[in-house]
Amino acid sequence: MFDCIAVVGATGAVGTIIRELLEARKFPCKKIKFVASGRSAGKMLPFAGREIAVEELRGPVFDEVDLAISSTPDEVARDFIPDAVRRGCVVIDESGYWRMDPDVPLVIPEVNPQAIGRHRGIIASPNCSTTQMVQALKPLHNAARVRRVVVSTYQAVSGAGLAGTRDLTGGTRAALDGEPYQYECFAHPIALNCIPQIGSPKHQGYTSEEMKMVFETQKILEDDSILICPTCVRVPVGNCHGESILVETERKVTAAEARRLFEATPGLAVLDDLDNNLYPMPINCQRRDETFIGRIREDISCPNGLAFWCVSDNLRKGAATNAVQIAELLVRGRGEGRGK
Amino acid sequence: MFDCIAVVGATGAVGTIIRELLEARKFPCKKIKFVASGRSAGKMLPFAGREIAVEELRGPVFDEVDLAISSTPDEVARDFIPDAVRRGCVVIDESGYWRMDPDVPLVIPEVNPQAIGRHRGIIASPNCSTTQMVQALKPLHNAARVRRVVVSTYQAVSGAGLAGTRDLTGGTRAALDGEPYQYECFAHPIALNCIPQIGSPKHQGYTSEEMKMVFETQKILEDDSILICPTCVRVPVGNCHGESILVETERKVTAAEARRLFEATPGLAVLDDLDNNLYPMPINCQRRDETFIGRIREDISCPNGLAFWCVSDNLRKGAATNAVQIAELLVRGRGEGRGK
Repeated sequence: MFDCIAVVGATGAVGTIIRELLEARKFPCKKIKFVASGRSAGKMLPFAGREIAVEELRGPVFDEVDLAISSTPDEVARDFIPDAVRRGCVVIDESGYWRMDPDVPLVIPEVNPQAIGRHRGIIASPNCSTTQMVQALKPLHNAARVRRVVVSTYQAVSGAGLAGTRDLTGGTRAALDGEPYQYECFAHPIALNCIPQIGSPKHQGYTSEEMKMVFETQKILEDDSILICPTCVRVPVGNCHGESILVETERKVTAAEARRLFEATPGLAVLDDLDNNLYPMPINCQRRDETFIGRIREDISCPNGLAFWCVSDNLRKGAATNAVQIAELLVRGRGEGRGK
Repeated sequence: MFDCIAVVGATGAVGTIIRELLEARKFPCKKIKFVASGRSAGKMLPFAGREIAVEELRGPVFDEVDLAISSTPDEVARDFIPDAVRRGCVVIDESGYWRMDPDVPLVIPEVNPQAIGRHRGIIASPNCSTTQMVQALKPLHNAARVRRVVVSTYQAVSGAGLAGTRDLTGGTRAALDGEPYQYECFAHPIALNCIPQIGSPKHQGYTSEEMKMVFETQKILEDDSILICPTCVRVPVGNCHGESILVETERKVTAAEARRLFEATPGLAVLDDLDNNLYPMPINCQRRDETFIGRIREDISCPNGLAFWCVSDNLRKGAATNAVQIAELLVRGRGEGRGK
């Protein structure tokens, strides 16, 4: 176990769930610190029946911290993490900043736990839209080698943080009442609308969010030959991302085989009975740690294609749960390393 | 011109817009009748400064009608149309019932106006999700032959009629207030949710809505070799369907060529400047008759692939506008036939 751990960005949308999960899963540590920007310093947050004061994010905080789980904007992660590592802290980072660094393992514990051993102080957790897709791709890749993926996302506003949730709620009320609303974090109104842009223009007409799905998937599966064409769309849903995924594999995977593969994969749950209107939706995947798969069917446009629909709670497995699972992997690694 | 035309289903979501368009476009006819179920009979509806009483849908209504534009449930279309045709009426049908009948042309005026000549009393207007996709496919097919399409839809509730709109509005208010709501027309709550099922299970795990996109596209483009893998998803948007489309063509179409082709195609409008956050969205395509294309980019997973995003007002070009345009084609055909 670790003597002292820290949650960085403890007051944010993901940080809040990290705190809940650490408490609920009884994460083994002697001391826990909550860290955030100066704006939140001093704020009292509950943990395991106590109240803990939020500390401001500054280097010396990490002198006694062994392990930090951090969910901050990219620029914050860029600035504080190298210093925290120099002070002896291992950082599990939710931000996008370090993910593609060759010295930083990008880890989904059910998919590539082996990668964690290569860390040099930083371990990155993938982008939410990547994680759920890669969880579903992994068993197909093992069984039949994934060659190509076409994915269209239906992404919830919680991926944009607490301001995203405020915008959806406030904007939708205003839209229903015919009143104006000043959006905080979207370029266009999200109420009763779909916005086919997440992130900024990045590569040949694809956005940064879309290219994350390409590069992170190739890194996690350690296979640059997997080709991916993503379209990322924000939809007026509070929480849980949907993804319409089409996979082409080297040999044909039938719908029945795919279902068996998904059912046998830890972290995945199959909800698939179209005759009884059963499939994953944001409303039935909320506050769940699994990634849910439904609408499994063979592609009628390509012999080796398989189509399915996938929903996961982007704040949970897409962020907080995955980071806490990485921390638990580290605990087990330390335990084994020390012969406990 | 026609002496007497009728709008059947005149009180519905699509019928209302058909009435507006006939008035706004000054459709040439001496007399117009509004027809609906017995429930609406006698209701007064405005038209060109007058009020017209709704007549109940019964056979004799069509004795003096030359042309009917009809938007009703499939079963209603099945039952009344053959009799109306026997009474000498040509029917432009928005329902799904007659579309795949070999004797019934399925027409998008900008795409296959020539098909209209083969009609034997019934002309069908395609499903909303098909129409906007086929409009975009047509210039690509002409230039480079479309071989395969992968499409994921983001469909608005107005496609489910007035009850769909009531459900979205009422359900969303209730969800924001934490109150219960009894849905009229969706199997699951649509408020702040995505439902990956439209229509009923139809073929190998695909829904009826998805198979419409396959069969109708092949019929309209008169090419059964075009393969299509559709995923149809209902999203909490009031009106205007979005579609994430990936097309594979026989030869490569660059993004620049695709843009030129789209720009040169009547009925299409290109809104595509990602650097300036410009692309089609439900909120900027409302009450427009064009189909809008954006996010045009080359597929980074396939040499001959092209990806784009497409939005159209499903009540307008997806339904009412297309039907009225078919009626206008018929008027021109009669004019030419009679040497006027």
